[in-house]
Amino acid sequence: MSFNSNDARFMARALQLARRGWFTTRSNPRVGCVLVNDINGKLTVIGEGWHQKAGFAHAEVNAMEHAKANGHDVNGATAYVTLEPCSHEGKTPPCAKGLIDAGVSQVICAMTDPNPQVAGRGIQMLRDAGVSVGSGLMEQEAKELNLGFIKRMTSGIPRVVAKTAVSVDGRTAMASGESQWITGPEARAEVQRLRAQSGAVITGSGTVLFDNPSMNVRDKDLVGDPYFEQPYRVIIDSKHQVKPDSEIFKNQGQCWLVSASKRQETFSANVTLYQIAAGEDGFVDLRGLLKLLAEEGINDVLVEAGSELLGAFLQLDLIDELQVFMAPKLLGSAAKPMAKLPFDTMSQAINLELQDVRQIGQDLKLTYQRVS
Amino acid sequence: MSFNSNDARFMARALQLARRGWFTTRSNPRVGCVLVNDINGKLTVIGEGWHQKAGFAHAEVNAMEHAKANGHDVNGATAYVTLEPCSHEGKTPPCAKGLIDAGVSQVICAMTDPNPQVAGRGIQMLRDAGVSVGSGLMEQEAKELNLGFIKRMTSGIPRVVAKTAVSVDGRTAMASGESQWITGPEARAEVQRLRAQSGAVITGSGTVLFDNPSMNVRDKDLVGDPYFEQPYRVIIDSKHQVKPDSEIFKNQGQCWLVSASKRQETFSANVTLYQIAAGEDGFVDLRGLLKLLAEEGINDVLVEAGSELLGAFLQLDLIDELQVFMAPKLLGSAAKPMAKLPFDTMSQAINLELQDVRQIGQDLKLTYQRVS
Repeated sequence: MSFNSNDARFMARALQLARRGWFTTRSNPRVGCVLVNDINGKLTVIGEGWHQKAGFAHAEVNAMEHAKANGHDVNGATAYVTLEPCSHEGKTPPCAKGLIDAGVSQVICAMTDPNPQVAGRGIQMLRDAGVSVGSGLMEQEAKELNLGFIKRMTSGIPRVVAKTAVSVDGRTAMASGESQWITGPEARAEVQRLRAQSGAVITGSGTVLFDNPSMNVRDKDLVGDPYFEQPYRVIIDSKHQVKPDSEIFKNQGQCWLVSASKRQETFSANVTLYQIAAGEDGFVDLRGLLKLLAEEGINDVLVEAGSELLGAFLQLDLIDELQVFMAPKLLGSAAKPMAKLPFDTMSQAINLELQDVRQIGQDLKLTYQRVS
Repeated sequence: MSFNSNDARFMARALQLARRGWFTTRSNPRVGCVLVNDINGKLTVIGEGWHQKAGFAHAEVNAMEHAKANGHDVNGATAYVTLEPCSHEGKTPPCAKGLIDAGVSQVICAMTDPNPQVAGRGIQMLRDAGVSVGSGLMEQEAKELNLGFIKRMTSGIPRVVAKTAVSVDGRTAMASGESQWITGPEARAEVQRLRAQSGAVITGSGTVLFDNPSMNVRDKDLVGDPYFEQPYRVIIDSKHQVKPDSEIFKNQGQCWLVSASKRQETFSANVTLYQIAAGEDGFVDLRGLLKLLAEEGINDVLVEAGSELLGAFLQLDLIDELQVFMAPKLLGSAAKPMAKLPFDTMSQAINLELQDVRQIGQDLKLTYQRVS
């Protein structure tokens, strides 16, 4: 099937709708849907919907409800969906069946299901029922909505973004641990959004001991959304240094406290204790931890950690994207490094690829991807 | 005097002409001049000129020659000059007198002479002869042509730009000294232009010993200009570690070898030995060295140095602009720091202001100014 400019216009709208679920779909993909019908010879949007939260209606169902609520007939309509409609009975009935039952005559999707074991089944179910189906319109844009979901579906581990705040000379704190504040309020507000779009935030015991952060989302616009949930806060504390009265445990939302061996202290009810054996480097098995998070339905992980833990993630090649907030300062050569990476030769250096540069207040946000 | 859009158009052209001397005026300012006359009721450019090199004709003289060579009469013309015409007998006769003698009726200049002791004298000479004079049109743009010249005229020391090539984690080389190449060929080509626009390049003995660089300008377009001269290469070698057969001495152009005490070795004819007493920090007096360079007519200095010397310049607050070429790499925490700055607290941190960001090949060029 070839697509025309009307198709592009309606799919662009569906992508826009999908983005409304940016901070709330969590373990589910962000999906948007636009229903279009011919009304008196004019292609007209009769319904719009997007997925808001796991367990709630899918985008297609919301769009059909929207159309009906406005007195429109879905029969004979075209559905533009940013992701192949599902074919399985989950928390909600399969969307492919719903579209068929409503008499939709054509479905155009931006991408197929990223799970290789189910990809194409929704399209097949539609075709078997006589619905005309096209796929691949604005596929790249659709993929960018769900990088974490796609990564989890195809590899079994979440997408990992690491955030670090550094000076121009690459330092995150003074040797004493003093670090508040390197970057400005605008950069810190951006970090709130980074956390909010992640299913889990991972940090290390050092950060908890030095800064005693809450590491939750406090931005009122984000927290005010009724579908919003705090990301899991995951603290890696191999050596049992973190105390039960740390700020990070005091807020709403689940915490995982990950240690290498069983611990005796009593933590508050929102804290789950995990034991993950340490590897040769003394750290808990970070890849194993990521697998556990994926099994819990976490698509996107944010690593907000000091040099030791960030260095460990980098050395294991577990970072998909590095976001560097760079303040216009020089903290000097005695200050703490960005990441502990004990390289001796240039050939060991980690190669990155610059994805994006933007100014955030007085700071720069540099986004890099790992070159594999 | 108020200016109109024609004035702005002709001054913009004069600024453009001045820029042609970017790499060659050296101890002199970059200046452009446009002569405009009314020909049959139409304002017409009758002559254009710019200053090319110290000792050669000034912009105004070149513009008048250009007009005459094309058969135009300068009598009654307006001269647009990016800098107040000179009033003193130097290597060439005063330009103010030349304009008066040629019968120019009006002079518009972008800025007055930055030397406070002579500022306004050229304008006064013109006014005394009955020439109408306006000043201050596009002053900011004119100042940006001559930041180094202005700094030297107003403070007695050159403008100092420091260039450094670092990884995202702020490292310039491996601990072993291995550093070739952190940045890509496009960034290195940009450094050629940075050198070429400077009257002197300062480096330290460490860089000479580790990398044995030529540190000259090799770009054929730059070197091919008949007015081009290599910048002085200034090597700070307090402890007499640099050998006479180093690459840096083998190229055309003057070298200054600066030590804290008298030395015995014989250097090639292009090398001048300087003795400048070391301060408490063990370094030669860097402010004293900059004064010497200013006396030699150097407006713009480029510091291309390792962490020790760059740190010393920064701690003495002698850097006007820091150009950071940032490669998409992580060299790791054992690698060499950008600048040796042994700070203990955030209050000691050096504050910068971001001036410019651009992508140069795969690298970023970040330009910062010191916040005083």
